[in-house]
Amino acid sequence: MPRFLMKLMYDGTAFHGWQFQPGQRTVQNELEKALRHFGANPALVIASGRTDAGVHALAQYAHFDYAGSMNEEQLVLAFRSLLDEDVRVLRVWRVADDFHARFLACERCYKYLLAKGKNPFNRLYMGFLAHYRLDVDTMQELAPLLIGCHDFSSFSKDNPAVPNHVCTLKELTIQDRSDYLEFWFRADRFLHHMVRRIVGTLVNFSHLELPAEELQRILEERYARQTLVITAPPQGLYLCGVKYPDPALDDYCP
Amino acid sequence: MPRFLMKLMYDGTAFHGWQFQPGQRTVQNELEKALRHFGANPALVIASGRTDAGVHALAQYAHFDYAGSMNEEQLVLAFRSLLDEDVRVLRVWRVADDFHARFLACERCYKYLLAKGKNPFNRLYMGFLAHYRLDVDTMQELAPLLIGCHDFSSFSKDNPAVPNHVCTLKELTIQDRSDYLEFWFRADRFLHHMVRRIVGTLVNFSHLELPAEELQRILEERYARQTLVITAPPQGLYLCGVKYPDPALDDYCP
Repeated sequence: MPRFLMKLMYDGTAFHGWQFQPGQRTVQNELEKALRHFGANPALVIASGRTDAGVHALAQYAHFDYAGSMNEEQLVLAFRSLLDEDVRVLRVWRVADDFHARFLACERCYKYLLAKGKNPFNRLYMGFLAHYRLDVDTMQELAPLLIGCHDFSSFSKDNPAVPNHVCTLKELTIQDRSDYLEFWFRADRFLHHMVRRIVGTLVNFSHLELPAEELQRILEERYARQTLVITAPPQGLYLCGVKYPDPALDDYCP
Repeated sequence: MPRFLMKLMYDGTAFHGWQFQPGQRTVQNELEKALRHFGANPALVIASGRTDAGVHALAQYAHFDYAGSMNEEQLVLAFRSLLDEDVRVLRVWRVADDFHARFLACERCYKYLLAKGKNPFNRLYMGFLAHYRLDVDTMQELAPLLIGCHDFSSFSKDNPAVPNHVCTLKELTIQDRSDYLEFWFRADRFLHHMVRRIVGTLVNFSHLELPAEELQRILEERYARQTLVITAPPQGLYLCGVKYPDPALDDYCP
């Protein structure tokens, strides 16, 4: 059946994450409901990766099969007319019938926004860790230790189904934006909770003024249950882009 | 009874506006509920001015009477511990027993954010007018016509209870912020829907390329039912500050 790739954005606030759950409002549920409405059967939408409840996406990618008469532009408009305003399809491409949004993705980008103070306007769109002292210089000194190809088990939620925990972290930067900190991550793949745990841990290290050797030790232990590893809240996390080898899918968001 | 003034911010999304309505979640209801919890009776909170459903406040001011044992700082903490996260008390001052948050306010500031395109992240925090061409230069040329002391009946929602519609508009600027336009208003007072109607009308004039004389004519007609007067949606409107003659209440947000 003809396969399509979609690029979409969503405000994760009112979703129970990406993944299908019976009786829950998830992004996958909403998209598959729309697809069924277009006559697709089975109606299955496969993302580049799942996002948890409360996590946002500025550029998520997902593929689906559809044999109806609409072309790419018509599919975009059809999705928009059916979906609620907190999820928006940005673009649709016709791709090869064996394209896979998850297995072919070769790079992902995330940003994490960490508020310096909580207020009614950032509470759903930034993370906040009460009572932690934020020292950006310390975090910027620690970050290079995590760059490169490592086993990130220490920063992953336990999942026996994942056979290996090796990721190549290509970029990790931290910018001070006066009201908040902006963390920027780029890697070939990310483990479950990995971004949130790296952010939380860098914050904890800056707060406790722990030495770089301790972070090195945690990384090398490859064991998830670390007392110094804090998980930052989901509201600050944004999936910002996914890269595929095909240069025609060039709508990669930096 | 001792009187207090509070400064607060709120995300208007989940409120049916400021004003008390039985059985509805309004900002006034929530604050008065908290005040009753502190033992105040009657528990009445009077704002500098009402805000409509969906309208936000970065700096609203309101007074209340309270004879209990808490001081200003303790009242701030007590309100914060009781209120939901979409409303936040920023500061409390002890004021004269005859202070009035509405009648003594001598200046108000509003901003209006108008999106150039709607998406899941701005839909609740910016206004959007589909199919209107936005020409900032035209709007900036028209704006000075409205500056000064005028009868703004043409830009007000009908309200027979308001005896006069004369306001002194001291500032009206429009900035192009790449993804959105930012309108900034400063006046001694504002009529109901006045900011939203001025924004909508400037947009409509830019869209239809109408001449300045037409805007002058509308202003002079002093009649609310104008076909060219469009009301911009509430989500883009923010109450940003209120000024009082007492310099001790110096926490005025620009």
